Amino acid sequence: MKLVIAVVEDKDSHRLVDALSDQNFKTTKLSTTGGFLKEGNTTLMIGCEDENVDDALEIIKKNSSQREQMVAPISPMGGSADSYIPQPINIEVGGATVFVVPVESFFQF
Amino acid sequence: MKLVIAVVEDKDSHRLVDALSDQNFKTTKLSTTGGFLKEGNTTLMIGCEDENVDDALEIIKKNSSQREQMVAPISPMGGSADSYIPQPINIEVGGATVFVVPVESFFQF
Amino acid sequence: MKLVIAVVEDKDSHRLVDALSDQNFKTTKLSTTGGFLKEGNTTLMIGCEDENVDDALEIIKKNSSQREQMVAPISPMGGSADSYIPQPINIEVGGATVFVVPVESFFQF
Ligand code: NI
Ligand code: NI
Ligand code: NI
Repeated sequence: MKLVIAVVEDKDSHRLVDALSDQNFKTTKLSTTGGFLKEGNTTLMIGCEDENVDDALEIIKKNSSQREQMVAPISPMGGSADSYIPQPINIEVGGATVFVVPVESFFQF
Repeated sequence: MKLVIAVVEDKDSHRLVDALSDQNFKTTKLSTTGGFLKEGNTTLMIGCEDENVDDALEIIKKNSSQREQMVAPISPMGGSADSYIPQPINIEVGGATVFVVPVESFFQF
Repeated sequence: MKLVIAVVEDKDSHRLVDALSDQNFKTTKLSTTGGFLKEGNTTLMIGCEDENVDDALEIIKKNSSQREQMVAPISPMGGSADSYIPQPINIEVGGATVFVVPVESFFQF
């Protein structure tokens, strides 16, 4: 058995937990970091059999990888509104840090 | 040495930490989940020698197992108070998810 | 590879994360405990190669060990301000609990 510890962005966590649950992975949502990250993080612990680790990793990768997202920029303060044409910009969102740790035993009481 | 990672309900955590402490287990209370669980969870990390793991598990089981609890139901809104006889109902409370992980070394600085 | 799990005081965590980062350790800041500790705790997870574990431990020890700190006591309520001479006192601050756990695989998506 393995313990998969995945740290993902808050905004990806609900979708990821749902996707894991759809494939019968039991997920324990550990915690959210405090304010020091602009985007809060969520830590998921997923206990899974050795033969299912690759499937779990695939689901994590699919639902929380770092990716680019187009956003509309805020229009500049005090600029001339007439001449300003907002261009969508790309920002990086998401990303997952994943540790796979051996588990000697697992219990649910 | 082993690291016992136990996720329990908030309401069980104080009693469990006390019971572990009474048996000289050092417990690190990690974190409480945010709002998405109605009952918040607490994660405990207990570093213990191999020969003490079973004792720690027994204490966790005794103090945080899933169990039924009788609660008085809320009386129905707008119902006839005269004819309403509240029946206590059973709800499930508690429960622990426990991972036992090998530890290569442990330090207190 | 190893996963170094360090539980330190909030007040030490920023300096410690900076010191680890200066030596190219990637740190995941997990969570802060709720109110039950007067001084909140922060849990750091540091994934590092086997040969770098000792360096990581040294940085943790240097930046978050338990130590004494001189503080000015609060002047006693209702005491005679004229005759009261505050003496600095020593309190214990800091401290780190560290588990080194084997990691089978590590991913960043
Ligand atoms: Ni959902
Ligand atoms: Ni108590
Ligand atoms: Ni800094």
